Amino acid sequence: LTEGAPGQARPSAVRLSLRQPQGETALLFGAGLPGAPELAAALAGRTVFALSTPGLRRLHGDLIARLLAPAGRLVELEAPDGEAAKSLEIAGPLWRRMLAAGGKRDSLLVAIGGGSLTDLGGFLAGTFLRGIDLVQAPTTLLAMVDAAIGGKTAIDLPEGKNTVGVFHHPALVLADTDFLSTLPAGELRSGLVEAIKMAAMLGPELLAKIEADLPALLAGDARSLLPVVAGAAAAKCWVVERDPNEKGLRKVLNFGHTLGHAIEGVLGFSGLRHGEAVAYGMLFAMQLQAGRPEADPEFLARLHRLLARLELPPLPLGPGDAAALEAFMARDKKAGEAGLTWVLPTRLGEHQLRQGLPPAEVAAALSRFLADPWAAARV
Amino acid sequence: LTEGAPGQARPSAVRLSLRQPQGETALLFGAGLPGAPELAAALAGRTVFALSTPGLRRLHGDLIARLLAPAGRLVELEAPDGEAAKSLEIAGPLWRRMLAAGGKRDSLLVAIGGGSLTDLGGFLAGTFLRGIDLVQAPTTLLAMVDAAIGGKTAIDLPEGKNTVGVFHHPALVLADTDFLSTLPAGELRSGLVEAIKMAAMLGPELLAKIEADLPALLAGDARSLLPVVAGAAAAKCWVVERDPNEKGLRKVLNFGHTLGHAIEGVLGFSGLRHGEAVAYGMLFAMQLQAGRPEADPEFLARLHRLLARLELPPLPLGPGDAAALEAFMARDKKAGEAGLTWVLPTRLGEHQLRQGLPPAEVAAALSRFLADPWAAARV
Repeated sequence: LTEGAPGQARPSAVRLSLRQPQGETALLFGAGLPGAPELAAALAGRTVFALSTPGLRRLHGDLIARLLAPAGRLVELEAPDGEAAKSLEIAGPLWRRMLAAGGKRDSLLVAIGGGSLTDLGGFLAGTFLRGIDLVQAPTTLLAMVDAAIGGKTAIDLPEGKNTVGVFHHPALVLADTDFLSTLPAGELRSGLVEAIKMAAMLGPELLAKIEADLPALLAGDARSLLPVVAGAAAAKCWVVERDPNEKGLRKVLNFGHTLGHAIEGVLGFSGLRHGEAVAYGMLFAMQLQAGRPEADPEFLARLHRLLARLELPPLPLGPGDAAALEAFMARDKKAGEAGLTWVLPTRLGEHQLRQGLPPAEVAAALSRFLADPWAAARV
Repeated sequence: LTEGAPGQARPSAVRLSLRQPQGETALLFGAGLPGAPELAAALAGRTVFALSTPGLRRLHGDLIARLLAPAGRLVELEAPDGEAAKSLEIAGPLWRRMLAAGGKRDSLLVAIGGGSLTDLGGFLAGTFLRGIDLVQAPTTLLAMVDAAIGGKTAIDLPEGKNTVGVFHHPALVLADTDFLSTLPAGELRSGLVEAIKMAAMLGPELLAKIEADLPALLAGDARSLLPVVAGAAAAKCWVVERDPNEKGLRKVLNFGHTLGHAIEGVLGFSGLRHGEAVAYGMLFAMQLQAGRPEADPEFLARLHRLLARLELPPLPLGPGDAAALEAFMARDKKAGEAGLTWVLPTRLGEHQLRQGLPPAEVAAALSRFLADPWAAARV
């Protein structure tokens, strides 16, 4: 984690670097990043496909235009806001437009948007002509700390999210926190959940900072957000460098996601935001650990208190939904032939992976959880 | 190039190995490969997606069934014969079927077919759940010496071939030459062109062998084909190991393909087979070199004689098609912003890459070529 050197255009920017199998990703976090030398170097003299959404262009058209100013030749691409962007029906015409507009192997795609948009943009860049260079410009807290980092890209099939995709790392991640000024409070909270996940698993200092600054973070205070964004991103980089293809350690990032994805699926991806569903998934993982000798009860209680302070919307599911959740988890794409791997917290900065939990144990726990998630997870 | 050790089930099989960025690819060439231990090890205990075509199942259903016998659980997938397989319209429902049939990250896809089928199969395996294991079982000469080796996978867009794809290496390439027994003569010739390309650029001994055995090769004689298939495959492996992502050396494999792809495109992919169009492309590259000091006239004449012995169908294009060919080449996906790179033969086993050939020079050469390709390329 290195602060920008004095004399550079944006002394307040935080710069990180991630070594990955395809090379090196530079990451840049700060307010007011148009003019950053890394961006100019990436865009100059090239055909640049700028993928964004109508909603974002309305809110931040001027900022986007200033970010893209160094492009040699600009081709604008548009996708719908939200998860609807991540479909074959959207990807197909975009590939065709990239080809018709003269896209070549040395063209570049810049994805400007939230996690859905950066997932789609990464997939387009990773597959167009077998892979062209990519700049991820995340505009939501969730995308800045998680989705835009680490090379996971995907679109959805009707039968499941993120089921068609590739690992394709960006050359540059450019997270301009000015985009966060218009982010709804619920989106800030959803992104904070992923930061809390990273902090609980990997970053004791980050966890203390989030606890201390929570009201300011939830209110979108830019000064408080920057170090949390950069700290969570640094934790993610640390994991991805050590396990780029999710063979082992990277599974830790799935804390809260096994049940979280199932909650989203059963709700039809409406009613709760991704991070909110993950928060409930974290609660359930904590419940599975409560009382086990390897789990530190003080740490679980501390995490429980922090999640409670987020004032999440209530979980709109009850005991009658247990079977649907179990069926969804059984189809989890991360499952191997041997079943699901649960990421379970043990103590601050530590976790364990458990495969082959008896289905009856999970079912019983789920039934208690759905009756009252907060009570069930209390230590 | 190692012959199978005595005592193994198939002592006549040729085994190769290719180190690539994702690991190691084992390659197996021979007659009667069901029961090969490598195949049993790859398939046992897993969900196996077996992708093939109705035409191939009619001709070789029994051989296919014996190859797939070790699979833990078999899910059959079907794609149309030929280039029609390589489309989003085909890939979309196949991805959905793989998911609905319970595909997981440790599932395996086996692609059994010609180059189009192995291209599609590789793309499906490379993108399903961000990549599952792949076995390529090429059934045509072209796929055995070229398409199935080296990790290039793709589908087509209406605007261009191989424009959406990924690099995804097979764990195993299994080329059972028994499939070649039903290959039409034109398909054998088309595949031989790629072997000649590899031999001219990389394998002096292979070139002599093809020259010596040409009648038997064109007649589909299995005993003559095996060493040529294995020799061409070994040459391809040598190149791919040194340049897996086509940053430099691997471009040599594009000899004959710059104009060859344009011929196919202008003909609407009918009238000439891929290898036949590439043979004309090789002739044109030879013409561009004729008279240049770095080109060995004896070698060019030797290659000209060998290509003439293939008795290719006449090129169904004339001088009036020059503009269309030039337009097609200008859109070549391998072009960078600086234009096309031509792979030009110099002497046996040597070549040069030339970028920025003056368009007027190419146009003039093309005009002579289209008037009489064989005369224009004669040294």
